[in-house]
Amino acid sequence: MTHKVALLGFGVVGQGFVEILEERGDFISDLLNEEIKIVAISDIKKGSLYHPEGLNLSKLIETVSQTGSLDAYPDTSGLIRGWDSFQTIQESNADTVVEITFTDVKTGQPAIDHCKLAFKNKKNVVMSNKGPVSLAYQELAELAKTNGVRWGVEGTVMSGTPSLRMPIVSLVGNNITEIRGILNGTTNYILTKMEEGLSYTEALVEAQSLGYAEADPISDIEGYDAQYKITILANLIMNIPIKREGVERKGISHLTQQDIQWAKSEGKRWKLIAECSKNGDEVVTKVGPRAIPINDPLAGVMGVQNAITYNCDLAGQITLIGPGAGKNETGFSILIDLINIIRGQL
Amino acid sequence: MTHKVALLGFGVVGQGFVEILEERGDFISDLLNEEIKIVAISDIKKGSLYHPEGLNLSKLIETVSQTGSLDAYPDTSGLIRGWDSFQTIQESNADTVVEITFTDVKTGQPAIDHCKLAFKNKKNVVMSNKGPVSLAYQELAELAKTNGVRWGVEGTVMSGTPSLRMPIVSLVGNNITEIRGILNGTTNYILTKMEEGLSYTEALVEAQSLGYAEADPISDIEGYDAQYKITILANLIMNIPIKREGVERKGISHLTQQDIQWAKSEGKRWKLIAECSKNGDEVVTKVGPRAIPINDPLAGVMGVQNAITYNCDLAGQITLIGPGAGKNETGFSILIDLINIIRGQL
Repeated sequence: MTHKVALLGFGVVGQGFVEILEERGDFISDLLNEEIKIVAISDIKKGSLYHPEGLNLSKLIETVSQTGSLDAYPDTSGLIRGWDSFQTIQESNADTVVEITFTDVKTGQPAIDHCKLAFKNKKNVVMSNKGPVSLAYQELAELAKTNGVRWGVEGTVMSGTPSLRMPIVSLVGNNITEIRGILNGTTNYILTKMEEGLSYTEALVEAQSLGYAEADPISDIEGYDAQYKITILANLIMNIPIKREGVERKGISHLTQQDIQWAKSEGKRWKLIAECSKNGDEVVTKVGPRAIPINDPLAGVMGVQNAITYNCDLAGQITLIGPGAGKNETGFSILIDLINIIRGQL
Repeated sequence: MTHKVALLGFGVVGQGFVEILEERGDFISDLLNEEIKIVAISDIKKGSLYHPEGLNLSKLIETVSQTGSLDAYPDTSGLIRGWDSFQTIQESNADTVVEITFTDVKTGQPAIDHCKLAFKNKKNVVMSNKGPVSLAYQELAELAKTNGVRWGVEGTVMSGTPSLRMPIVSLVGNNITEIRGILNGTTNYILTKMEEGLSYTEALVEAQSLGYAEADPISDIEGYDAQYKITILANLIMNIPIKREGVERKGISHLTQQDIQWAKSEGKRWKLIAECSKNGDEVVTKVGPRAIPINDPLAGVMGVQNAITYNCDLAGQITLIGPGAGKNETGFSILIDLINIIRGQL
């Protein structure tokens, strides 16, 4: 058996995923009793390839790393070049579309349209882009269900750390009454450095020089990134159909060394906390800096790490800490969604 | 559809599980499209009941809480009393046996014999007792497999926190090269209190007065409890067929305030760390006090909480923090194993 995959977009995440597949494909085939094959890649800048029997993974990696494009991928019988993303979705024989295009987080496009077309064509979708999930979760989840296909989005929050699957699968049966998280690595890095004595501006500059800040630093610093992610958590885990705009939001740019020192003197530590709680019909969702007690499990989360605490009425207070980003980490998030789709597991 | 369950033992965990089932049975039935029914309870002190159509949950709770026994459970047509555990396994119509008898952790009995008999009778087993799993994992897992039944042991490490299922299901595909954990709440509580200035003996007495120390305090303090649990983690998650005796072990009873202060001055904190690492053919498994850097995710785990860090070659360093014990927590661990057996999920 083979499970055929089309990649839309071939940037860092896509290349990371193909490298993982190349390196441990045999292990995964043995595990699943089914081989994962990449049949198509369509990238707006690097070009497009389609072969119904599958592309050669090591040649894909070699070609793109040497030339920055897919044009030099060797011709073989049956190879088709030049399909755009929509053609790839409709005309390829892929079972699953991995949507990792460069997508505008504010509109969720073109990913949202890719999802819709894939679902209508009875293809599963896996993605790691938070925008489309945050903006259109209810609509897209419904469309996937109607068409009898799956939508994997594990990588949208905490990359390969199972922040969505762990509560949905392994904590089912609990009433999860509250979620509190450190969902943005850049701001957590800045706050960690401010504790070490740097000013806000010095810490920000350091974060930028290390490449931690996203393309638009405002998105991190003012809490928009965390706002997207808590929206996803609220929808998927707590079944609260909230939109991003409904989440109260405040960033960390107003914090000073004086604030940091005050928290220290109180046995506390500043963290940018995204939270969602449900008490009967009352729902609270917000993002903002909080001075939390030093013995809170989230207080020990330093640097670019992310973390989430789930308050479960039976299993208790459970915290998951892990990386928020990374090539291998996000590549793995794609793989685990595929594994679960192939296994027919939640 | 119904899934029929026999409970061997009806102490705190069993009563917690029945209470959960009574309180949210409808939710679970809707979730699974299948009703979980308790058909038998066999407790060496409280008595035994069997009814092929199922026992009344609220009457069970009422009877045991009012009388401390099952003898006063009302007679109904078809009710059988007095079966011992072996009869219950062999003669009841249960699909799954929940093994929660009072078991000698050093011999694993009678739980090991109960497991064997259940598997041979094509019945699944769910248990939360670490002894039998730590002592006989390879043999029992093989026996369950041969007989086409399942063995759920989530509650043996970190009660309802998915310390076993999360890595096995949601991190599959990774090479997990190292596991490091705080697996004993009592010692972590003592170390937390010593940081607050108490002597070792004062902290131990406080832990005992709060009921945190297990029946035999030596098991906690000298690292035996953690030794059992790291043995389970090594076998289940890293596929290392080690026995408990093979795990190097040292406790915390020799630590003094001077040691605590020295660690503080070095930016470190003492924790009783159970660890297992694999590097090619070289396997290291040990339990002992370590002074770990304050920014290690395990350093922030205070009081009776437990935690495990999994080093994954793709998904990165992932830490799970949660309760190590508790009536609801362990009751939930039984429920989640049953849910996964009924769903046919790993």
